[in-house]
Amino acid sequence: MPRTIVLSVDAMGGDQAPDIIVDGVQYLAKTVEEGTLKVLLHGKASLIEPLLARNAAAARLCELRHTDTHVAMTDKPSHAIRKARGSSMWNAVEAVKTGEAHACISAGNTGALMVLSKVLLRMARNAHRPAIAASWPTLKGASVVLDIGANVECTQTQLVEFAIMGEAFYRAVHGARRPSVGLLNIGSEDLKGNDVVRAADALLRSVNLDMDYQGFVEGDDISMGKADVVVTDGFTGNVALKTAEGTARLATAFLRQSLRSSPVSMVGGALCQGAFRKLRARMDPRKFNGGVFLGLGGVVVKSHGGTDGVGFANALKVALNMARSDYASHIAVNLEKLATSLDTAGNERTAS
Amino acid sequence: MPRTIVLSVDAMGGDQAPDIIVDGVQYLAKTVEEGTLKVLLHGKASLIEPLLARNAAAARLCELRHTDTHVAMTDKPSHAIRKARGSSMWNAVEAVKTGEAHACISAGNTGALMVLSKVLLRMARNAHRPAIAASWPTLKGASVVLDIGANVECTQTQLVEFAIMGEAFYRAVHGARRPSVGLLNIGSEDLKGNDVVRAADALLRSVNLDMDYQGFVEGDDISMGKADVVVTDGFTGNVALKTAEGTARLATAFLRQSLRSSPVSMVGGALCQGAFRKLRARMDPRKFNGGVFLGLGGVVVKSHGGTDGVGFANALKVALNMARSDYASHIAVNLEKLATSLDTAGNERTAS
Repeated sequence: MPRTIVLSVDAMGGDQAPDIIVDGVQYLAKTVEEGTLKVLLHGKASLIEPLLARNAAAARLCELRHTDTHVAMTDKPSHAIRKARGSSMWNAVEAVKTGEAHACISAGNTGALMVLSKVLLRMARNAHRPAIAASWPTLKGASVVLDIGANVECTQTQLVEFAIMGEAFYRAVHGARRPSVGLLNIGSEDLKGNDVVRAADALLRSVNLDMDYQGFVEGDDISMGKADVVVTDGFTGNVALKTAEGTARLATAFLRQSLRSSPVSMVGGALCQGAFRKLRARMDPRKFNGGVFLGLGGVVVKSHGGTDGVGFANALKVALNMARSDYASHIAVNLEKLATSLDTAGNERTAS
Repeated sequence: MPRTIVLSVDAMGGDQAPDIIVDGVQYLAKTVEEGTLKVLLHGKASLIEPLLARNAAAARLCELRHTDTHVAMTDKPSHAIRKARGSSMWNAVEAVKTGEAHACISAGNTGALMVLSKVLLRMARNAHRPAIAASWPTLKGASVVLDIGANVECTQTQLVEFAIMGEAFYRAVHGARRPSVGLLNIGSEDLKGNDVVRAADALLRSVNLDMDYQGFVEGDDISMGKADVVVTDGFTGNVALKTAEGTARLATAFLRQSLRSSPVSMVGGALCQGAFRKLRARMDPRKFNGGVFLGLGGVVVKSHGGTDGVGFANALKVALNMARSDYASHIAVNLEKLATSLDTAGNERTAS
C-alpha cells in the first residue's frame, strides 16, 4: 500500500480563493485511494469551514490550519516577505520545511511565493538557482519547458542544472523512463545562438550525466514534441510560453470568425461541436496548470492565479506525483556529477 | 504618375530557384501598373531564359543579368563571402549599392546575404547594427516583430534603433500613419525582465522621438496585436516567431485529428471547408513572407528559402512598398535625434 502523502495548501492564494481551492481538493479527493492523501489547508477558518461543509470528500482529507493573514496578489515580493510570516502562504511552505508535508501548492503571488520558498526551503544540494517548469501540449503529448520566468539571465551551469531538474520532473509527472532533453536555440548554421547556450551544450556533452541529451532544438520544435524537456533561460522561456498561448488564442478566434462567415459553415460548425470540444480539451490550459519551482529543498507548485477548481486539482496532482516520485534523489545524483565535473575542471585549470 | 521602381532580384537563391523566382515576378507583374516596375534578374541565363519565355508578363518587366555562379544554401557566411563576388546574390545587392536598383530581394542563404549586404551597403547613418524584421498575423491584421535573428545579444541603444527602424518599416509596408511600438518583456511586477530591456524602455521615454511608444508588451500580446511594432533581441524574437509557427501547426494538426474522430464531425468538417480555407488564408505564412534587413544603407528583403511563387511575390511586394516609401528619410530623423540625445548624455556624464 502506498504511503500517505501530505500536501500543504495555501487556501487563500489566487483570484477566487478559497472557493476554487476547496473545489480543487474536492476534484482530487474523488480520484485518490483512501488513506493515500492528506491535505493541510492554511487560511481563514470562517471562510473555509462553510466550503468544507459543502464538499464532504474534500473535508475528509483536509486538516484546517487557521490564520488570519495572507499575501495579496498585488504585494511586491520584498513587501510580501516582510509581512508574510504567519500568512497562509508562509505556513503552507513552512509545513514542507518542517517535514510535516511532502509538497506545497499555492495559486497566490508568484514573486512572493518564490522569495518565501527560497528563504524557507533553501536550495537543494548542488543547485544554485530555482527554475519554474511548465508543461506544454505537443503533438506527442506533453513537453516540459524551463525556466519560464524565475531567472532572466542564466549561466551555462545554471542551464545544465535546469536540464537535470527538468528531466527528473518529466519522469515524475509524465512518467517517461528516459525523457529526451533539448536546449532551446536559434537557427541554422549561420545564426548559432549565444555564447551561454553554446557553452551549456558543450557542458551537457562533456559531463557524464544520466540523461538523454539531444542537442539544440528551435522554437517550432517545442509544439512538435521534438524533445520531452526544453531548457532555456527564464526570459526566453516566458516569452515562448506566452507567445504560444497568444497564438493558440489567435487561431481559436480566427476559426470562430471563419465558421461564422457563411450559413453552410455555420451548419458544419454545429456538426463539429464534438470535435471542437476534443480540440479544446487537448489544448486546455487547465490541464497544464502547475508551474513547479525546481531546485529548492522541497517541492513547491505554483498554480495559475486565475484557474478554476479543475485547474487547481491538476496543480495538486502535479504536487502529488512529485511527492510520490524519486525526483529528489534522481536530481541529487546528476547535480553531484555536474558539481564534481566542474570542480575537476576548475582544479585542472588552476593546476595548469 | 509614380516613378519606376527597380528591383534587383537574386534569381538563384532558395530551394526551388530560379523557377519560383520567375513565378513570383509573374504574379507581381500582373498586379502593377505598366511602367512602374522594372526587375533586374541576376542568374544563369540558360536556366532563366526558358522560364521567361513561358511567363510573358514577367519577361516584359525583366532585364536578365547573366552570371554563372551563385551562393549555395549550405555555404557558411564566411566561406560564401570569400567566393561571393560576381555571384547572383552579390550582383543583386551591388545593383542597390550603385544606385541602379531601389531594393534587392533574395531567397538564398540568410547568413551570406546578411554579411554581403553589410559589406556592400554598409549601415545607414547613425544605425549600428542591422535587424531582421518580420510581419506576423494578429487579431487586428499584422504586427512587425524585430529583431528575429540578426543579433543574438543587443544593447539598449540597439533596441531603440530597432524601434525606430521597425516603426518606419511598419508605415512603409502596412500603411499606418502612426504605428504603436512595444518592447517585448516578461511578466508581472515581480519579474520585470532584464536590465537591457529596462534601460531601453527608459531611453525610449527620454529621447523625444517621433513615435507612439506604448511601453512593455508580453509574448501573448503579439498575436493579439497590442502593439503594431514589437521590439526585441534576435534570440528572443527568433524563438518567439518559431514558437508561434509551431503552435499554429499544432493547432492545425489537433483540429484535423478532432475532425476525423467521428462520422458527424467528418460531415461537419466537409461543410466547413470554405471556412477552413479562409482560416488558412489568414494565417498563410506566404502572406507574411519577406524578412527585411533594416538599418543598412539600402533595402534588402530576404524571402523564405522554401516559399513558392505566391510567397516570393509577397517578398517582392514588401521590397516595392519599401522602395516607394519615405522609410529612409523617416528613420534618418529619429536616428539623428537618438544620436544627439546620446551624445548630450555622454557629454553631461563626462562633464559631471
